[in-house]
Amino acid sequence: MEIIDVIKTRRSVREFERKKVEIDKIEKILEAARWAPSAKNRQPWVFIVVQNEETIKQIASCTIYSFVGNAPLLIVVFLDKSEMVDRTKDVQAIGASIQNMLLAVHALGLGAVWVGEILARKEEVNKILDAPSYLELMAVVAVGYPVERKRSSERKSLKEIAYREKFGISW
Amino acid sequence: MEIIDVIKTRRSVREFERKKVEIDKIEKILEAARWAPSAKNRQPWVFIVVQNEETIKQIASCTIYSFVGNAPLLIVVFLDKSEMVDRTKDVQAIGASIQNMLLAVHALGLGAVWVGEILARKEEVNKILDAPSYLELMAVVAVGYPVERKRSSERKSLKEIAYREKFGISW
Repeated sequence: MEIIDVIKTRRSVREFERKKVEIDKIEKILEAARWAPSAKNRQPWVFIVVQNEETIKQIASCTIYSFVGNAPLLIVVFLDKSEMVDRTKDVQAIGASIQNMLLAVHALGLGAVWVGEILARKEEVNKILDAPSYLELMAVVAVGYPVERKRSSERKSLKEIAYREKFGISW
Repeated sequence: MEIIDVIKTRRSVREFERKKVEIDKIEKILEAARWAPSAKNRQPWVFIVVQNEETIKQIASCTIYSFVGNAPLLIVVFLDKSEMVDRTKDVQAIGASIQNMLLAVHALGLGAVWVGEILARKEEVNKILDAPSYLELMAVVAVGYPVERKRSSERKSLKEIAYREKFGISW
């Protein structure tokens, strides 16, 4: 699949088959995450890969989204504050790394959803995972084989978000 | 090219040929940006596409990196603060959108560098581009046809950044 098609056909997947995600696929997802760019190449990310059902249930209890508990795999994403350069740039890098994972997931025939709502209870997630406080929860990516169904999404047009040369001259 | 290869072979490109970037390629890059995920799908991004040489020189004067002035195309990326949900999540979304652009750039045979250092003088960049203050500068992506040369990069190993099930059990 062409990269632009991977980008445009990726959808949030919230319904997963009961099938486990194979280790070699998890490694490909982490490889994608690892190769994101970051300010001064500090790579301020840490991932905890959770497949244990009990731990998944505990993490799911920290969000209003019950589908998290049905995912066979959670990749919990942290900002390593000991590697920080500048919060805005480091948080952007985390976003780049998560996007790499979502694209790899989709290209591998898996599905995922990026859960941010759980940040409201981030300290509890750290506790569940024995994560030290210099790791700040950034997101949970729930991954699995997607239940087949049509998924659509919308985006603003280029005219609404892009300008030529200066602000005010719409694309 | 497989997505994982696009991700792993992308490099920061700082030396550009004097050739202009074609409009259809610019549109593909913006399309990639547009399809990033964001919190509540608010798409808090705005892009100003700059090809005017004089404007490029002015923007380049706001960073210590002189190569910015030699790029034939700058995509200036802003956070639209009127669309904010939560700063951390919105800034992550900006990072996802920039990463989509960098991957599209690479897949199109172009090269780019993500410039964050310019945030130190973000108000000046807004002024140059007539951008209102509710647009906060997030990055400048300098794009062009890469001068051919070997470019290498390094990343931490998975063992250093990933854990199994709980913190402490390295991948």
